Amino acid sequence: MNKQKVKRGFASDNNAGVHPDIMKMLVSVNTGHTIGYGSDPYTEQAKQLFKEHLGSFTETFFVFTGTAANVLCLSGVTRPWNSVITAFTAHLEQDECGAPEKFTGCKVLTVDTNDGKINTDLLLKHMHGFDFEHHSQPKVLSITQPTEMGTIYSPGEIKNLADFTHENGMLLHMDGARIANASVSLDLPFKSFTTDSGVDVLSFGGTKNGMMYGEAVCFLKPGLSNDFKYIRKQGMQLASKMRFISAQYIAYFHNDLWKKCASHSNAMAKLLADKLVHLDGIKITQQVQANGIFLIIPHDVAERVRQQYFFYPWDEKISEYRLMTSWDTTEEDIEKFVALLKEELKKRLQK
Amino acid sequence: MNKQKVKRGFASDNNAGVHPDIMKMLVSVNTGHTIGYGSDPYTEQAKQLFKEHLGSFTETFFVFTGTAANVLCLSGVTRPWNSVITAFTAHLEQDECGAPEKFTGCKVLTVDTNDGKINTDLLLKHMHGFDFEHHSQPKVLSITQPTEMGTIYSPGEIKNLADFTHENGMLLHMDGARIANASVSLDLPFKSFTTDSGVDVLSFGGTKNGMMYGEAVCFLKPGLSNDFKYIRKQGMQLASKMRFISAQYIAYFHNDLWKKCASHSNAMAKLLADKLVHLDGIKITQQVQANGIFLIIPHDVAERVRQQYFFYPWDEKISEYRLMTSWDTTEEDIEKFVALLKEELKKRLQK
Amino acid sequence: MNKQKVKRGFASDNNAGVHPDIMKMLVSVNTGHTIGYGSDPYTEQAKQLFKEHLGSFTETFFVFTGTAANVLCLSGVTRPWNSVITAFTAHLEQDECGAPEKFTGCKVLTVDTNDGKINTDLLLKHMHGFDFEHHSQPKVLSITQPTEMGTIYSPGEIKNLADFTHENGMLLHMDGARIANASVSLDLPFKSFTTDSGVDVLSFGGTKNGMMYGEAVCFLKPGLSNDFKYIRKQGMQLASKMRFISAQYIAYFHNDLWKKCASHSNAMAKLLADKLVHLDGIKITQQVQANGIFLIIPHDVAERVRQQYFFYPWDEKISEYRLMTSWDTTEEDIEKFVALLKEELKKRLQK
Amino acid sequence: MNKQKVKRGFASDNNAGVHPDIMKMLVSVNTGHTIGYGSDPYTEQAKQLFKEHLGSFTETFFVFTGTAANVLCLSGVTRPWNSVITAFTAHLEQDECGAPEKFTGCKVLTVDTNDGKINTDLLLKHMHGFDFEHHSQPKVLSITQPTEMGTIYSPGEIKNLADFTHENGMLLHMDGARIANASVSLDLPFKSFTTDSGVDVLSFGGTKNGMMYGEAVCFLKPGLSNDFKYIRKQGMQLASKMRFISAQYIAYFHNDLWKKCASHSNAMAKLLADKLVHLDGIKITQQVQANGIFLIIPHDVAERVRQQYFFYPWDEKISEYRLMTSWDTTEEDIEKFVALLKEELKKRLQK
Repeated sequence: MNKQKVKRGFASDNNAGVHPDIMKMLVSVNTGHTIGYGSDPYTEQAKQLFKEHLGSFTETFFVFTGTAANVLCLSGVTRPWNSVITAFTAHLEQDECGAPEKFTGCKVLTVDTNDGKINTDLLLKHMHGFDFEHHSQPKVLSITQPTEMGTIYSPGEIKNLADFTHENGMLLHMDGARIANASVSLDLPFKSFTTDSGVDVLSFGGTKNGMMYGEAVCFLKPGLSNDFKYIRKQGMQLASKMRFISAQYIAYFHNDLWKKCASHSNAMAKLLADKLVHLDGIKITQQVQANGIFLIIPHDVAERVRQQYFFYPWDEKISEYRLMTSWDTTEEDIEKFVALLKEELKKRLQK
Repeated sequence: MNKQKVKRGFASDNNAGVHPDIMKMLVSVNTGHTIGYGSDPYTEQAKQLFKEHLGSFTETFFVFTGTAANVLCLSGVTRPWNSVITAFTAHLEQDECGAPEKFTGCKVLTVDTNDGKINTDLLLKHMHGFDFEHHSQPKVLSITQPTEMGTIYSPGEIKNLADFTHENGMLLHMDGARIANASVSLDLPFKSFTTDSGVDVLSFGGTKNGMMYGEAVCFLKPGLSNDFKYIRKQGMQLASKMRFISAQYIAYFHNDLWKKCASHSNAMAKLLADKLVHLDGIKITQQVQANGIFLIIPHDVAERVRQQYFFYPWDEKISEYRLMTSWDTTEEDIEKFVALLKEELKKRLQK
Repeated sequence: MNKQKVKRGFASDNNAGVHPDIMKMLVSVNTGHTIGYGSDPYTEQAKQLFKEHLGSFTETFFVFTGTAANVLCLSGVTRPWNSVITAFTAHLEQDECGAPEKFTGCKVLTVDTNDGKINTDLLLKHMHGFDFEHHSQPKVLSITQPTEMGTIYSPGEIKNLADFTHENGMLLHMDGARIANASVSLDLPFKSFTTDSGVDVLSFGGTKNGMMYGEAVCFLKPGLSNDFKYIRKQGMQLASKMRFISAQYIAYFHNDLWKKCASHSNAMAKLLADKLVHLDGIKITQQVQANGIFLIIPHDVAERVRQQYFFYPWDEKISEYRLMTSWDTTEEDIEKFVALLKEELKKRLQK
Repeated sequence: MNKQKVKRGFASDNNAGVHPDIMKMLVSVNTGHTIGYGSDPYTEQAKQLFKEHLGSFTETFFVFTGTAANVLCLSGVTRPWNSVITAFTAHLEQDECGAPEKFTGCKVLTVDTNDGKINTDLLLKHMHGFDFEHHSQPKVLSITQPTEMGTIYSPGEIKNLADFTHENGMLLHMDGARIANASVSLDLPFKSFTTDSGVDVLSFGGTKNGMMYGEAVCFLKPGLSNDFKYIRKQGMQLASKMRFISAQYIAYFHNDLWKKCASHSNAMAKLLADKLVHLDGIKITQQVQANGIFLIIPHDVAERVRQQYFFYPWDEKISEYRLMTSWDTTEEDIEKFVALLKEELKKRLQK
């Protein structure tokens, strides 16, 4: 079998594999028969764990991908004549190939923001046309925590946005593809900056933090989406062998595995940023609050380094790149990468 | 952790777990970093294996579920004003919650058939309105192999349907959710009753035959769906850690694991049918050609047996039930089940 | 300007023009300014007239076409995971190019019927899978009155269907593209065989009975579609100069213009049928209850007659044709057509 | 019949009625039978007229509304994974209730612009992610001529945008809901600033310039949308009595009726602007190049004037209002309106 050596890097937290504890759990539940499609004891247990972490009203539905979690969260609480407001940098705007529009029929409106965070001032642009049939009706504000720029909302900031959206008859969705990194960064339990801060609907990710696959759609308040089971099925996201998603979440919550993984990746990002910040020719462009680092690197330097380490350009116009750490990033990865970068920067100065 | 004893049964081939060889492979590829979303060597290798089994023009795209495989196959070759013709019993008509209509915008037309199989006579009902803008334009015939009724098309029957569809400017799709069971039953390689029989697009399943998750969309002829990568992504079916689907297919094809699994489940169905066929009060309603048995059982008897073994009613109006065997069905499962059934039938006669 | 002589015929009731009273009204309301999009006094008055004819709870929304009326009626009371049941011969199945599926996302299920009429026995085929997430949830039964085969439901038959659908948690939609012809045929007011017989949602047509354009979506019970104004706009069916639809309906209801037009076309159909029924070689295949006649004509005869009179084949396999009369059909039209037909039939016998 | 006196005003050019020449034509073609759905000589003639005005490759399809024209233009040349770029102020972004997203499945991206006009610099924001399956693929740039802000693109500006879009593998759509006003303002024939300037697809409006209803979807180059007839039908925009749209366009082009109407409304806007520009307390915010005037009026003044004349607020945050003139605006309308406005402004100063 082909097992070609793949280079390590900082391309994305989903280039990492599956945490051994998750894999062990997958092996462990692989015994005998279980009813399919979620009517099994593992799924029951996993849904209960979500109630413990997010509040007793939480209704959880497992799906396959982060894109699906976002799209189905929105689909659960909108009708096609609604609009969803989000940051221009948001995953659901930039990286879902129009799946939100295709599946929900809704309009996605954006606000421009430098750090990936939204505030109420930015929203005013879209707060008009309510009850006017010519205009898509604003229904959901979607924020990402941590943002796609690696920054973090405080619970107070989230509460502000929740109050604003609710006052306007809207709901607050959080894309928590990397929510564990936010929890670790804030040093707060999930509930404090979601349910307790007014979030209504949550995409709760696991794949980027050590799981194999599977994400969760969480309705945090009662009555938000009574018919969601049909939405998930029609959205092609109902797993037949559901136990293999549920079991991963059981392992993920067991002994705070999620916290260990996210703490590690956040710490690695911090370590990497500390080593980069004083390098001549490098400029870190965003606060490093989770596991992502955004920085400007001279183009030729970056390209040479990328021949040995995976990472992606973010904004080619200003030679900005993104580095993501993950649960399996090692100090050695960081040291070698920084050493190579330094060498390339030095070569450049000598020219 | 909750590990409540779950009763075994004949409810569905997806109540079974994951074959140990598949699980071993999942553990084996879980080393280090790999580029996400399919640009990895495992996916390359798996796609190559599909070319070997289905022909060199085969373009393969992995997705998560059987519903997704069917819907995206259709989406790849239709526009919303097309119609898709299938059997009334087909999974895509009965068990996909309208996902084909929702995602493709197409009309799904059905033909009534007793054994799940379609022939050209049945299709005539829908062969009209071509080029007439008021009428959805027939574009795809979708057949299931083996059918949802456990029956099998011969290569000749498939060829006939392919010729008919092509003559009418249409394409032939095969839902191969249990295609391995068909191959074993026909004692023919996949290619002979797909590509070589004129099939254009194929949903190639694995989950029902020992995999954990993951199905394949296969375009068997060149040029059928040039933009399919966008369709998959917008359909929320692009796996970030793709290697864990691809690797399963590598294991699945390795040493004909697929054949061992399917041969076993077909043999178990045969064994079970042989024991049932002579029982008084039982009537087998379909030919047993793969791993499904359809039979009429007196309602009260069935309900008492179902308290100990999972299986589902198929047509409650005539007290028809479905029994599915799987790669892990044991002779003991069958003996105990038949013994219990006999006992209940006997009790009934004594009343 | 091109004013080539167009031959008359029996092709469709929309080949006729606009009744002079409707045209007069269009001229009459063309004075000065009026607020657009329906906030005008003509629309207010027209909506009031619908309340008078269909009951005080009636909420009416004007749209452009019969297809739009049907599709938006369904869209108002369904979600994408629902199914709609209708006759295989129904306009929404055969002649809307999949618009219902595309716009609502719903599945359209059909029942086979010889005369275009549905009864509860036929519906049993689809009465399963309720509350089962794999299966589209049946939500609407759609009947056509008069049917596409020119037959008429009695109020009692409609009441039966309404009771059945309501008992199954469903709603009853009526496609009334030619509803005036039904009212005349039954000699009953609209309300008796719609609202009073349990119909929930109604497509109320006018174009086929002397109007220029414009159809009405009528919700006959309160609370059925609170957000319908957005559905109409998003469905691209909100007229800017709405007064020119509303005014047509004002004229249509004034002095029972609708009744005069429909009585005439029904009478012409009766006259035509009476002349055809005894012709050798002709077989009338459906009861003539409204303004459509279905009949088998020898193919060669039909084709020769069609060179002088427009009419369409209905089922080419059995050489069945459809003749539609309209508000402007004249006795002369009928006499000349029958004379020609007789002559061609005679020629044939002489061969 | 209710004929309550409606106040005149400057709310919208669709508050006006139908030009008498159009109405006369509607009466004139209302004779005898005509084949429905566009296979009639009037439609043939109207389509020919579009070829004369826009170039011999022009393929024209009539629809009912401006929203439909825009949405179907886009639908004809996109697939759901495409994106469409337009101005934030564009009708298709602000005033179509999400119909473009719902019907095409595409993402609509916007650029901010003060005067409603787009230039290539503004587009750079969205020129990325080509060939990347995670990202909606930019396919169409949609500009409005004249813009929703009453401004006009020169042929050179359009040519620039066309070149830019074509270089990026995209197409240029023009929303010409008021295209006659642009032609008059530029003193150029339609073709020079559409086909000859590189526009690919055009929504050609008539309703806002004296027609009763009906707009045109024009594909200006061959091969752009071979299956468009199905898109129109499935989009619920195929008129049965098509002659009554076609005939309006025949009258519209006859003796340059369109030019007379648009010249008049543009001239009235000029006259009104000339009278407003020197008023104390009023600030005209956009160039007056067509038939719309945007101006800041003290809120209390505006509200008092609006009790006698219809017009709408545009941006309530800055007390900006919009005045639209139409083919039937009279000098008397303007004089009375300005007199009242002056009086209210004066009262205010006296306080």
